[in-house]
Amino acid sequence: MNRPTAPTGTPLGDSFHVYDTTLRDGAQREGISYSATDKLAVARLLDSLGVGFIEGGWPGALPKDTEFFARAAAGELELRHAALVAFGATRRAGVAAADDPQVRALLDSQAPVVTLVAKSDRRHIERALRTDVAEAAAMVFDTVRFLVGEGRRVFLDAEHFFDGYAHDPDCALRVLQSAVDAGADVVVLCDTNGGQLPLQLAETVAEVVARTGFRVGIHCQDDTACAVANTVAAVQAGATHVQCTANGYGERTGNADLFAVVGNLVTKLDMPVLPAAALPELTRVSHALAEIANLAPDTHQAYVGSSAFAHKAGLHASAIKVDPELYNHVDPATVGNGMRVLVTEMAGRASLELKGRELGLDLAGRHDALGRAVRRVKELEARGWSFEAADASLELLLRREIDEAETEAPFALESYRVVLDHRADGEVVSEATVRVLVAGERVIATAEGNGPVHALDAALRKALEPALPWLSSVELADYKVRILVEHPGTDAVTRVLVQSSDGEREWTTVGVHGNIVEASWLALCDALVHKALSVREPVG
Amino acid sequence: MNRPTAPTGTPLGDSFHVYDTTLRDGAQREGISYSATDKLAVARLLDSLGVGFIEGGWPGALPKDTEFFARAAAGELELRHAALVAFGATRRAGVAAADDPQVRALLDSQAPVVTLVAKSDRRHIERALRTDVAEAAAMVFDTVRFLVGEGRRVFLDAEHFFDGYAHDPDCALRVLQSAVDAGADVVVLCDTNGGQLPLQLAETVAEVVARTGFRVGIHCQDDTACAVANTVAAVQAGATHVQCTANGYGERTGNADLFAVVGNLVTKLDMPVLPAAALPELTRVSHALAEIANLAPDTHQAYVGSSAFAHKAGLHASAIKVDPELYNHVDPATVGNGMRVLVTEMAGRASLELKGRELGLDLAGRHDALGRAVRRVKELEARGWSFEAADASLELLLRREIDEAETEAPFALESYRVVLDHRADGEVVSEATVRVLVAGERVIATAEGNGPVHALDAALRKALEPALPWLSSVELADYKVRILVEHPGTDAVTRVLVQSSDGEREWTTVGVHGNIVEASWLALCDALVHKALSVREPVG
Repeated sequence: MNRPTAPTGTPLGDSFHVYDTTLRDGAQREGISYSATDKLAVARLLDSLGVGFIEGGWPGALPKDTEFFARAAAGELELRHAALVAFGATRRAGVAAADDPQVRALLDSQAPVVTLVAKSDRRHIERALRTDVAEAAAMVFDTVRFLVGEGRRVFLDAEHFFDGYAHDPDCALRVLQSAVDAGADVVVLCDTNGGQLPLQLAETVAEVVARTGFRVGIHCQDDTACAVANTVAAVQAGATHVQCTANGYGERTGNADLFAVVGNLVTKLDMPVLPAAALPELTRVSHALAEIANLAPDTHQAYVGSSAFAHKAGLHASAIKVDPELYNHVDPATVGNGMRVLVTEMAGRASLELKGRELGLDLAGRHDALGRAVRRVKELEARGWSFEAADASLELLLRREIDEAETEAPFALESYRVVLDHRADGEVVSEATVRVLVAGERVIATAEGNGPVHALDAALRKALEPALPWLSSVELADYKVRILVEHPGTDAVTRVLVQSSDGEREWTTVGVHGNIVEASWLALCDALVHKALSVREPVG
Repeated sequence: MNRPTAPTGTPLGDSFHVYDTTLRDGAQREGISYSATDKLAVARLLDSLGVGFIEGGWPGALPKDTEFFARAAAGELELRHAALVAFGATRRAGVAAADDPQVRALLDSQAPVVTLVAKSDRRHIERALRTDVAEAAAMVFDTVRFLVGEGRRVFLDAEHFFDGYAHDPDCALRVLQSAVDAGADVVVLCDTNGGQLPLQLAETVAEVVARTGFRVGIHCQDDTACAVANTVAAVQAGATHVQCTANGYGERTGNADLFAVVGNLVTKLDMPVLPAAALPELTRVSHALAEIANLAPDTHQAYVGSSAFAHKAGLHASAIKVDPELYNHVDPATVGNGMRVLVTEMAGRASLELKGRELGLDLAGRHDALGRAVRRVKELEARGWSFEAADASLELLLRREIDEAETEAPFALESYRVVLDHRADGEVVSEATVRVLVAGERVIATAEGNGPVHALDAALRKALEPALPWLSSVELADYKVRILVEHPGTDAVTRVLVQSSDGEREWTTVGVHGNIVEASWLALCDALVHKALSVREPVG
């Protein structure tokens, strides 16, 4: 096993850890249910930001997590910056670490780093674990030593540390000591119930560092609405490893938000904890991670929320225009966000031009096309479209403005009809009929499917495949639906994201409509047109 | 004028101020637009909590605010605990306070307390106000002296104080000094751009208190996600007046959340800043204030969010049952909230029994029913159902196992058909026909809708309402769709969550099927059956 156990690419190297636990602790949030495929996508986005460690889950305890590690180990996850971490418990009481199947599962995951969770509050040891402090410490020692012996780097999450330290400091420190004695190189102080406030928490962290000399990490829950503040205060008190989750996802009120913690460390405390190139990606990645979690982005989120730099007060409008730095706590561009009162056409043009370049389109000399594209994007976004996660649709939009003819679809719809029957015998059937013009012919095709979108997709393929044989390689890889209720009482619109694959690459398209089937149709059509373009002008 | 200028009813009297600015600063939040009537309702709710001061708005600057103060003065607002505050600017440069119409408007509002906002950052004074520090200080002095002379109690909001103090402390302190010299009795240090972190902010507050001896207040924006932490840290550093907004509403990322600040001061720092009887009202009042603002309550909000004490069951369910205090940072009842157990993949008998108790169902003696329910939940969850957010569906499932007859639906489906047409003229239409048995009759009804689910819902209501008139009060409040692609290549299933409301309560149901319309149908039916049960056996 030669996989990295330290962050690569951050100016601070291994001396400061940004450790993400979205895939384990974040997944505890009510409503989040990641598939193994979702988890791989989340890990890739986090890695692109340059976080140092990505905790992938609890192999052996949750089948989806076991699958995630297996697929990662099989080559589906190439990490450029981060080391992959498996999370798990120490051996059970009275069992040797090597014989505990849960400990074995940590090894089997092939993750180069393991974070073990252990109780450090005497009350939890006695009442929940039903053992004594000596055995709890032995469980930590044995498990850490076993895993270190097997070549793993090991961190210890000391659960309920702050409550435990207040109640019985010797017990809490003894658990840390066992871990360090056995070879763990970070002990993470966890505010598991989230009841801490920053001034006290900073004092405790400083005291623990002074008394033990251990390398200390911090893990905060947001029950007092202080998770971010507590995390930053802990760093100021000596912690050199922060455990966070994307957008603060987590159980109950959530965890410390990775984006706010990083924003604060970098812009307020001048600590380059991520590679410099990653900072302007924070906003985009935050929103993409919300999409994968199927949650609406929090518009009021610090640093990355769409309202984070939106100024409403009429009072200051003109002053803001002259001296924006007097009214923003940081330059929004630092974190890839924008100030909304100043969203001029120029700002829109610049970012679309940049995006175009990223997609291989040179818009630099195309003033008119760029202007039309900016207007079109703004108009569509006002109606609920979002191109943040739908690069393929954005590329089509830009291409259409550059050269309409080049981007012409290889087929045109005349009409479709979808019929859904829940029959008296209980069976549910979906049937779609499409009428399309393709290669100069009018073609009618009918197909059945599991549901309306599946039936429509099947009928469309049946109609087109004789003329467009390359279509058979295109698969619908993922399909996401978001209902957008902007204001209670108004009609909702539906936004559909379709991820397609041809076995070599994946691309995502978007459709928005009051009718979910029509929204899906729009995204499906964009997906096929995008593939058609690559057939016409193969890349590479 | 004999209206109170100090809080009444709190154990701390005038020595500590909980000052609410929801109606002024909170109203800056994107999407909030209070009418004068809304403002009166907000003020009554805040007063019922026992806050010390309610800032009602900016009379003279905003017509709705002028109207609010006029109606309050005319007797529409009887405050039991709070003093009413008008907010406004100091006199303009070069004009006498008595001659400035905006200052006059503050007097005309008849509010017994006035909070004046003044610039305390030299850069803002010079670049936005376009005057010098001497004139800025004179503007503060003159306006405070004039209003105090007219019998008002005056507070000063020192805008951009922290940035200004860091840049030029003498200038910032001179502005405070002018206010105090003229009779202001609290100077409020404002983190207007919201860039502060708690440790530094606490140091600055302590330093200002030590250097001046003034009574100091704190006003924090949430741009670093630290507004609550900063407010609490300021109190620990000597501030005795906290400015907050309900649910943290405010411009950009918002303000310090009143509920989290009060929760922390009362339960973590043992400061009785509100009357004891008010604390169990925090959750209810928070949600009511969200209603008036026409915003969905933040489910993950500290102390008062519906997820704030929600635990994913399974692993720790039995431990949580025995020792809830080991897993909650405070007793949820303290703030009028409750602990919820989320039924997840890892659910067992203990967590379902606990959940049943929460829903008012006694499963303790019902071993067989409980066993059947556990099997049923596991079987459904394996097929993609999730009851975490769908209490109403879970309740129906549990009730069906306890007593099938009692939970019988008031209608039965024979069949439905939904037809979606994308016509050649581009129009998209959805039409649904349902055939149901209700009250012994077979009824057929057809209706159109924006999309397939809307059409189906409309047709079902049309068929049922003659026999079930209570149906008309039930509204579809929210609708969420999740496509579950567990493994690429396998058929996806669709999970639909439907949130319904009858104007008094809300409940959520779930449906899962390969066909999105059928999944929606299942959730819609559960929603109506759940309502039917409550009609049959009214509670209370």
